[in-house]
This record gives sequence, C-alpha cells and structure tokens, in this order.
Amino acid sequence: MVSADVTPPVALTIAGSDSGAGAGIQADLKTMSALGVFATTVVTAVTAQNTAAVLSVYQLPANVVEDQIAAVLADLPVASVKTGMLGTREVVEVVARRAAAGDLPDLVVDPVMVASTGHLLLSRGAIEAYRGRLLPHALLTTPNLWEAALLAGVEPSTIDDVDTMADAARRIHRLGPTWVLVKGGHLPGVGPAGHVDAPQRVPDVLFDGEHLTVLEGPHVATPNTHGTGCSLSAAIAALLAAGAEVPEAVSVAKEFVHRALENGKEWRLGRGHGPIDHFGWSARPRAGTPPSSAVGT
Amino acid sequence: MVSADVTPPVALTIAGSDSGAGAGIQADLKTMSALGVFATTVVTAVTAQNTAAVLSVYQLPANVVEDQIAAVLADLPVASVKTGMLGTREVVEVVARRAAAGDLPDLVVDPVMVASTGHLLLSRGAIEAYRGRLLPHALLTTPNLWEAALLAGVEPSTIDDVDTMADAARRIHRLGPTWVLVKGGHLPGVGPAGHVDAPQRVPDVLFDGEHLTVLEGPHVATPNTHGTGCSLSAAIAALLAAGAEVPEAVSVAKEFVHRALENGKEWRLGRGHGPIDHFGWSARPRAGTPPSSAVGT
Repeated sequence: MVSADVTPPVALTIAGSDSGAGAGIQADLKTMSALGVFATTVVTAVTAQNTAAVLSVYQLPANVVEDQIAAVLADLPVASVKTGMLGTREVVEVVARRAAAGDLPDLVVDPVMVASTGHLLLSRGAIEAYRGRLLPHALLTTPNLWEAALLAGVEPSTIDDVDTMADAARRIHRLGPTWVLVKGGHLPGVGPAGHVDAPQRVPDVLFDGEHLTVLEGPHVATPNTHGTGCSLSAAIAALLAAGAEVPEAVSVAKEFVHRALENGKEWRLGRGHGPIDHFGWSARPRAGTPPSSAVGT
Repeated sequence: MVSADVTPPVALTIAGSDSGAGAGIQADLKTMSALGVFATTVVTAVTAQNTAAVLSVYQLPANVVEDQIAAVLADLPVASVKTGMLGTREVVEVVARRAAAGDLPDLVVDPVMVASTGHLLLSRGAIEAYRGRLLPHALLTTPNLWEAALLAGVEPSTIDDVDTMADAARRIHRLGPTWVLVKGGHLPGVGPAGHVDAPQRVPDVLFDGEHLTVLEGPHVATPNTHGTGCSLSAAIAALLAAGAEVPEAVSVAKEFVHRALENGKEWRLGRGHGPIDHFGWSARPRAGTPPSSAVGT
C-alpha cells in the first residue's frame, strides 16, 4: 500500500560536484536531507578540490546537463529547484530554456560566479546569460556582494553597506527575479579580520520589488565555512519544496546554516576551510565503535 | 579550540553519479552520513537516470578521476574507501595504482558490472583489470551473483544455491581480496516472483580464505530497491572507517540496508524502482509546513 504522507517533498539541485564534499551538490544533498527533503542532483562540472584548494575543474557538456534534467523531471515530482555552479553560457542557457518553459518550479538561482579568492569563475557571456536569460525566471536569486556587483553592473567596491546593498538589490530586481537576497558576508569589517569580542551582526538584504527587509544574523568565528553559500540556497529550496513562502524559507535557512556553522566550528576536517556540520554531529554524543546505535530506525 | 572527538571519521566513495539520487555517490553520501561518517566523493561517470531508466552515461576521463582522488587524499584523513561504478579499464587501473601504493585503506570493492537488466556495463578488459589489478588490494569485495560469476569465471546460471555461491567465493578469494561477500539477492526464487506468505530468507556468503559464514536476512517485499547494493557497500565502508572489523561491519551494514528498505517500502518516489529511505524519514512523524522543527540542533 502506497501512503502519500510518508513520501517526502522532492527538490532538485543543478550544481558542480566537490570531491571534498563540503560544497556543491554534496552540500546541497546533505542540506536538503537534513531538512527532510529528497534531493535530486544534476551535475554540471566535476571539481577536484579539498578544503584548501581547487586542483582542477572539468566542465560537462551542456547536453549531459540537459539529459540529467530531463531524467529527473520525467520521473520525480520536483517541487523546487536551486542552481549553483553552472560554469558556462551554454549550461546557463540549457537551464534558462527549461525555466522559460515553466519546468523549474520555485527556482532559486545562487549565481556562483566568483571564487572565494575573488577570481572570476565565469565568462562575460555566461554572466550576460544569467542577467538576460535565467534571472527573469527565478523566484529568488542569492548573490554575495561580488556577484551582486556583477549582476547589478557596478564596481564591487561601491557595495559597502546596507544602503548600497539595497541599491544593488533594486538593480538586480529589474532583471526579473521575483525576490533578491543580497548577502552581506563579504562586507568590509565582517569576518575574522574585523572580529572583536562581541559577536558581529551580518546583514542580508531581501527585496521583492516593493518591500525591503534587512535580515541580521550573528557572525560565527570559525575557519569551517566551506559550502556556506551552497547550503543556504539549498536550504531555501528545500524549505520552499516543503511549502514555505520565500521570507520564511530565507529566515529558517539562515538559522539552519548558522547552526551548521556553530556545530562544525570546532571540528577539524582538512587543512583549509573545513565543511560545516549539516547533521549536527558535533552537538550529539558520539557512539562507540562501531556505531551500531547510529543505524537509522 | 579544535577538539578531536567532535571530528567524524572520513570515508571515500569512488563511483558514478545518479541524477535521481537513489544510487551511486548520492546513495553512498546518504548512507555514510546516516551512519555518522563524513563522506568524500570521487565521481567516475555522470548518469542521466531516474527510478525507471538510464537515459545516458557520460564517462569521465581517467585523469579527472585521478585528480579528484589526489585532491581528497592530500587533505582529508580517509580511513576507508569504497568503489562503485568505475566504468572503464583506465579508471579501474587508476584506482588500482593508488591501491597498490597503499593509499586506499580498508578498500571495499563493489564490482559494479551488470545492470539490473542483466546488461554488461563494462568491457572485458575492465573485468580483467578488476581481477588482476584491483581485487588483489581489496580488503573486501561484494559481488552479486552475476558479478561473482564474471569474477569467478563461471556461467551465472551455475551459481544457484549456497554451495555454488561458496564455490564462487573461494575462486574470487584466490584473486587476492582478504574477504569476499557473495550476495544472494538474485538467487532463483528470491524476490517478488517467489514471494510467499512467510518472509523469505536471503543468504549472503562471507569468506576470508578460511572461514565461510552464511549470513541470512529477511527479504523485503517492496518495489523501492534502487541503490540497495551501493548502500550496502557504502555502509560497510562507513562502519570500517568508524573502527569495525569486516564481519561486524557486514552484519551491521546489512541491518542498516534492511531498515532502509523497510522504512521506504511504502513511499512513492518515481514510477520505477524507487530509492530506499536512508534517514528513516518514513518512520518519523513528519513536521508541518515548513519543517522548521527539522532544522538540525
């Protein structure tokens, strides 16, 4: 007997693979799973990376991305979609065509464009495809400051406080997404360099074309931040799949990522920026060896 | 302050990507996560598939697989490894070289060779590379009956009971793995076709060159079996990473997969063979919408 209420909501992530499994489809799969949502996964690129460095990036042909999207949509009841690293103009256009056809419900576009070193990951043509082809079909886009500058067409250095973040959000909103969330994590003075005794507040700006909300969250002092952005957009998509509206999804997703940062702040996985703790392992007593008590019920 | 006891064990899966996320690295990541082990992931091939069909398979070049393995091993304390779909002789050889160099501890080789349709997924050259190059370095290999026949060099139809499974295990053991687990799930009479009122017992044969053990588990009557084999070998690797010895790891992993089959037997994800329920979602009360109570602690 098939019982509808035991079937979880389904979300789709279209993103790169991270061999270190801290970011990309791996972070998305963990985030969505931790939130009780069944994640399907379309791989756009295969990166050889760990917590310290990206060794290589292998971009998949656009038709391979197209095939995977077709396989998922033909069979599973996808209720929301997030995009992460798309990598090339051709892949952005494959996704945009599906979005334009109405096949990608509750589409969250995390416009992965700039590495944490500030290095541009995409061609100018791909950025234009985001602006002109993909964002018009997004329910929400979640740029960080650098990505917001590229999408808004302004110099990154000009976005340096909540007012200029709001300006960027307004410019990006004109490209067509229903909602824009500009994330303030890279504001001057935020993060380890500006860390003082009292926890800092990090502002994000959420805009729907009418109402502008500033969402403040505490800064978590930790080296383990790899995959934070991926996990935020994945959590938003998961919560949308579960039926939340955008403001609530953003707020609960921020709380989820905050807890994952807090939970993982003392573990040590890799020599660089370690992953966050999606499942709250660090907060739980660890079973003995072997962890037979960890076997799911 | 870095605290060692909050850091989970790390395992590595080297396998294909399943867009429907029921099998492959996705099943491995979910399995290892559900068992409290941090999974790293090397992608060998990108499949466009769902619960009903495989639309396409895109094999990655061997050097891309090599790069990913290098990225993970250079940074993260991998305590066990499992291999799933490797796909080509070149990729089998890349993995075998690392194994021969002693870089892949507690190596579990799930010799993915035959699709559930009975269709051969690998070239003869790749099968010979498994036999001659990779298996000598495996701690354990976990063939199903068809794969056991290919590795043992006998006709599949000749393996039809526990005695012939034991013969195949002895032949495979001579290739070099420390342990062999021949899985009986495809024995004649097991499964839906032979399902009768009383639950059937499915025998697996475990052999270490000296002791032969028959492990019996109940058959679960469910259409949702996609990823069962992947999840079993992933669970074994996770339990080895957590410190278990092979017999205990195999036994607890079988219990884990059994529960995941039981938990997922009534959900409906896709039109074909749906995934198993790695996280025990179906057994838990579902939160309202949105599932803010599902946010990890």
